Amino acid sequence: MHARRDLRATLLTENIGEEIFALAAKIFPICRSITGNGVRQTLREIAAHIALEMHEVPTGTPVFDWTVPHEWNIRDAYIKDMRDEKIVDFGRSNLHVVSYSVPVRKHVSLAELRQHIHTLPEQPDLIPYRTSYYAEGWGFCMPHRQFEQLPDEIYEVVIDSSLEDGYLSYGEYLHRGETEDEFLLSAHVCHPSLANDNCSGVALLAHLAKRMAGLRTRHSYRFLFAPGTIGAITWLARNEHHSQRIKHGLVISMVGDNGGPTYKKSRRGDAKIDRAMAHVLRHSGMIPVIIDFFPYGYDERQYCSPGFNLPVGLFQRSRFGEIPQYHTSGDNLDFIRPKYLAQSYRVIVDTLDLIENDGVYSNTMPKCEPQLGKRGLYGPVGGNKGTAAAAMAMLWILNLSDGRHSLLDIAERAELPFTVVRDTAQQLQQHGLLTKCLRPDDLADCAAQ
Amino acid sequence: MHARRDLRATLLTENIGEEIFALAAKIFPICRSITGNGVRQTLREIAAHIALEMHEVPTGTPVFDWTVPHEWNIRDAYIKDMRDEKIVDFGRSNLHVVSYSVPVRKHVSLAELRQHIHTLPEQPDLIPYRTSYYAEGWGFCMPHRQFEQLPDEIYEVVIDSSLEDGYLSYGEYLHRGETEDEFLLSAHVCHPSLANDNCSGVALLAHLAKRMAGLRTRHSYRFLFAPGTIGAITWLARNEHHSQRIKHGLVISMVGDNGGPTYKKSRRGDAKIDRAMAHVLRHSGMIPVIIDFFPYGYDERQYCSPGFNLPVGLFQRSRFGEIPQYHTSGDNLDFIRPKYLAQSYRVIVDTLDLIENDGVYSNTMPKCEPQLGKRGLYGPVGGNKGTAAAAMAMLWILNLSDGRHSLLDIAERAELPFTVVRDTAQQLQQHGLLTKCLRPDDLADCAAQ
Amino acid sequence: MHARRDLRATLLTENIGEEIFALAAKIFPICRSITGNGVRQTLREIAAHIALEMHEVPTGTPVFDWTVPHEWNIRDAYIKDMRDEKIVDFGRSNLHVVSYSVPVRKHVSLAELRQHIHTLPEQPDLIPYRTSYYAEGWGFCMPHRQFEQLPDEIYEVVIDSSLEDGYLSYGEYLHRGETEDEFLLSAHVCHPSLANDNCSGVALLAHLAKRMAGLRTRHSYRFLFAPGTIGAITWLARNEHHSQRIKHGLVISMVGDNGGPTYKKSRRGDAKIDRAMAHVLRHSGMIPVIIDFFPYGYDERQYCSPGFNLPVGLFQRSRFGEIPQYHTSGDNLDFIRPKYLAQSYRVIVDTLDLIENDGVYSNTMPKCEPQLGKRGLYGPVGGNKGTAAAAMAMLWILNLSDGRHSLLDIAERAELPFTVVRDTAQQLQQHGLLTKCLRPDDLADCAAQ
Repeated sequence: MHARRDLRATLLTENIGEEIFALAAKIFPICRSITGNGVRQTLREIAAHIALEMHEVPTGTPVFDWTVPHEWNIRDAYIKDMRDEKIVDFGRSNLHVVSYSVPVRKHVSLAELRQHIHTLPEQPDLIPYRTSYYAEGWGFCMPHRQFEQLPDEIYEVVIDSSLEDGYLSYGEYLHRGETEDEFLLSAHVCHPSLANDNCSGVALLAHLAKRMAGLRTRHSYRFLFAPGTIGAITWLARNEHHSQRIKHGLVISMVGDNGGPTYKKSRRGDAKIDRAMAHVLRHSGMIPVIIDFFPYGYDERQYCSPGFNLPVGLFQRSRFGEIPQYHTSGDNLDFIRPKYLAQSYRVIVDTLDLIENDGVYSNTMPKCEPQLGKRGLYGPVGGNKGTAAAAMAMLWILNLSDGRHSLLDIAERAELPFTVVRDTAQQLQQHGLLTKCLRPDDLADCAAQ
Repeated sequence: MHARRDLRATLLTENIGEEIFALAAKIFPICRSITGNGVRQTLREIAAHIALEMHEVPTGTPVFDWTVPHEWNIRDAYIKDMRDEKIVDFGRSNLHVVSYSVPVRKHVSLAELRQHIHTLPEQPDLIPYRTSYYAEGWGFCMPHRQFEQLPDEIYEVVIDSSLEDGYLSYGEYLHRGETEDEFLLSAHVCHPSLANDNCSGVALLAHLAKRMAGLRTRHSYRFLFAPGTIGAITWLARNEHHSQRIKHGLVISMVGDNGGPTYKKSRRGDAKIDRAMAHVLRHSGMIPVIIDFFPYGYDERQYCSPGFNLPVGLFQRSRFGEIPQYHTSGDNLDFIRPKYLAQSYRVIVDTLDLIENDGVYSNTMPKCEPQLGKRGLYGPVGGNKGTAAAAMAMLWILNLSDGRHSLLDIAERAELPFTVVRDTAQQLQQHGLLTKCLRPDDLADCAAQ
Repeated sequence: MHARRDLRATLLTENIGEEIFALAAKIFPICRSITGNGVRQTLREIAAHIALEMHEVPTGTPVFDWTVPHEWNIRDAYIKDMRDEKIVDFGRSNLHVVSYSVPVRKHVSLAELRQHIHTLPEQPDLIPYRTSYYAEGWGFCMPHRQFEQLPDEIYEVVIDSSLEDGYLSYGEYLHRGETEDEFLLSAHVCHPSLANDNCSGVALLAHLAKRMAGLRTRHSYRFLFAPGTIGAITWLARNEHHSQRIKHGLVISMVGDNGGPTYKKSRRGDAKIDRAMAHVLRHSGMIPVIIDFFPYGYDERQYCSPGFNLPVGLFQRSRFGEIPQYHTSGDNLDFIRPKYLAQSYRVIVDTLDLIENDGVYSNTMPKCEPQLGKRGLYGPVGGNKGTAAAAMAMLWILNLSDGRHSLLDIAERAELPFTVVRDTAQQLQQHGLLTKCLRPDDLADCAAQ
């Protein structure tokens, strides 16, 4: 039990928030899309921290109902007015170009240009983030205030991009544990300069994987860095045969802001990851929002499709789409903070700790209470109001450890943090009052002992 | 699926509220009771709209624990004072006479008369509605204000009624569908001039039956117009052998006022009709009151007796007994409105539509999401906040159509109107993304496919 | 059914509150602990009312994980100041001495004395109640106000106690019913002069047992008067072989104050005693607090340990620990009142009545409603708003008596007091409309009839 109990001690390091922030800041400027060099460059930054395994899947590869698309790359893009001034410049923000825009180089009237411009009239100073993956076209995004002031003249539009046969890139990293039961941790790497969505999630997982090196765990931990939707679909198509090894999973995105925390349950709704996240968040000191599964959002859509139905939930701070910065240039490095990244990291570590250490125990003296006092486990003077509170965790564990309740069951019922229940269980085990069931995940089996 | 989908289009006709009102107004003046010519005259008015099958059951026929009673008919009744003035006149309101009063013709003192008068002291201007079916007697009903001012003199009381061997009359109409599974729609025809209770329900069902003619349906629809309690008991006694064909049912009464809407669940509590009515009412734009079954009320008492336990609920606007007009002369034609009758009618039609069109489907591409975009089912530019909402119904249906969830299950879970889910499912079916399970009511079977 | 129905009539006697109070007052001054003459004297007072069976278990007897401790007796104790004045005197209150204090007779400085004094700084005028059963030591308890004013001088401390091999004493009384199924009623007899905790519970059970003499009951009733924790453990250890005869049980303590009432459910949470107590309390006219089991409190801790898991709950007025008088000299005879003792007694009698009289019945005319009117069970004039209410209990029983619902099930569903349902069921039985299922506790069996 020791190595596992060290999990929090090993993973909860000083300055973790700053380190995650630094990596998020490093990958922020890269122009990512669902394919292309931006993804590769991002994976290389992750690979500077962990031994990331890179995968390249050719354009045209069928993946379930989908096909790996052309690879998109972009070198430059701008709109010039008649004074030869770049009024929109990809070099200043990669959000200015609609992702997957085909190459274009021509002069257009304002009327024609307007057909290709996206703005946010209600947020007139922000650049929106737009994509056009599966319908060929081109477009620019700009602040609405600027858009409204464009004079009626001729503009030069240039998008120096390529959309050709190539590859879809993703990276994965496996931390091997004692068993082949896997815990999937997945972040999307397809969004360009959006700090919270999802430089924050990518950087958090990279640092978590880095710190797990050398740690002995019961589960294996699979870290997946892939473009949203098509990346997850591609991974599932190529790993269908062992997808059922995934016993728990989390999609991680938008973990650097001060909102939430939010947990969206897996499609199953009562998977262990659902209970574990709910428990950890309720005892996090923050006020969590726990929501039922719905079939929109991030890659939990694919993991929880009915043909897989994997126990994978989504962890976020603010809910996607519910903050004004969502999918705009407002989601920049000012929007995320080391402090919040560290909070999010701790929630995930506490969840891993719970999943690793949960188990079913049996009270070795189930008839009446064992005498805690003679073992020094109980205050000596009865009637003291304080004594009772201190002993409650012991009493709960002894009362419910009948081979039918796991430590998480007990923590939920007793409304105690899992860490307290886990540590107290260890203390009782050391005094011979508790034995671990042989197969801790098989409750029925334990009860039958 | 087409004929069934036309159900709402066929049934939701213009001016339906006015037409129901007109029939209710036509039958309002008739003096109905649990037997007699008033019931026959009412059934003839219904028969002017549909091919109603009339039944006459002789007095003395045993029906379970009951016996068909004597037939009651009344020609005239009044109370005359010493000035030979009719102070109470059956000709002005048939509520003035206690239903099932035996004939009487005599002079009585005020003291004796008072023993036979029913009033409402708290509603002094209204005439109450009273019956004395199973205990022979006679009585009059009048406004309390008038009652208090009766001078102490001799009165002539005349009730020109007969209570003799005869028949109990009821009518039924069967709309035959593709299967013998029946949907029972039942209204009581035993109340005299009470507009809401139940001229409204009788007229609504007559017009619903009329409009169903020629419509192809999956279920057969049985419309029953019978006197309350004894009529339903008689029908059940004569149709006991095939009562289990009734898969869904509604008792309809008091559907013309502006209250509620109210749905009282069947004894089962989780029958499909219970879920369907709750769903339709929640999406009706009104604020419904959904109440659990209790063994008092209308003929659901008989349908839901433990020996039958049929899935029959009660639909009303205001709850019976909870409005001051209930069982008084205040329940007149001013109390019901075409507008509210049309609302009630629509609720029932939407419920029929749901029951007809519910079914279990299977996603043909259950592994990851199918690519909606290439089928033109998804907005082309990603990141647009509006696009998501439009696709939600599709995503819900695809995610939950695993052979274990019916369209109603999905509508409930997604909090979408059934009609949206039904239409979207058809769209997905047309694109080959959904197939109907062979036996839609057998969920377990479908899941095993 | 008669003898059982007489249970309330027999047990609910006049002046019961005063009689319970008188016994509580009689045993209040006795210095009880978990062993010793105080317990014996208390048991003798109980034995003046019922044929109590006394048990003496020798020191050193192993009882599960525990050992019967030394017997403690005390004759006198005091603290004298330098003016030879007894500033603390056991003769004035037996709370002044920490229970199980070893003998001591010496002169001590104030500094040393303070190590052995317990006070309540937040309740400076009250003496706390303290024990030191399993760690040898000695101590005094006193009001904090007095403690603060002790001058810095030399004190004489005397505790004339003995802590030696002896016996643990407890008493039990069995009221034999028709079956060996037992209802356990348990009160602790180890607290010294604390009126509510638990002179009240001891006196209530003694009077309940006394009144049951000669009463014919279905269950056997076992009354246990034993020291807390070690007494219950000892009893369970000596009666392990037939503990499973206990089908229902209550621990009774603190039943004389004006708080609550409180019911803490058994570990099972849905035992019949849990449902019965909840039902009786909801219809008691008081506002009950019903709480889930937790593994702290009174002897339900032992009865509900996982190796026994008996259906035993705890009945109290105020919750232990939640009132300022708890375990202080404030819990004196002024704190309990005959009126509240009588209320508590009635709750327990009503619960016994429910457990005795609950059963499953079958409606003999399950198809449609039987005609209540012809049996004189229904008001003759229909439409009268008052008639309905009176008939509701009958209608509920007839509707739900399908061999699957017990009278308690019906009372809960109908929100009617059990006594009304029980009496109405008897009325229906007399009219041949209801028959009792042969094995009333076996619901599945009855439904299959």
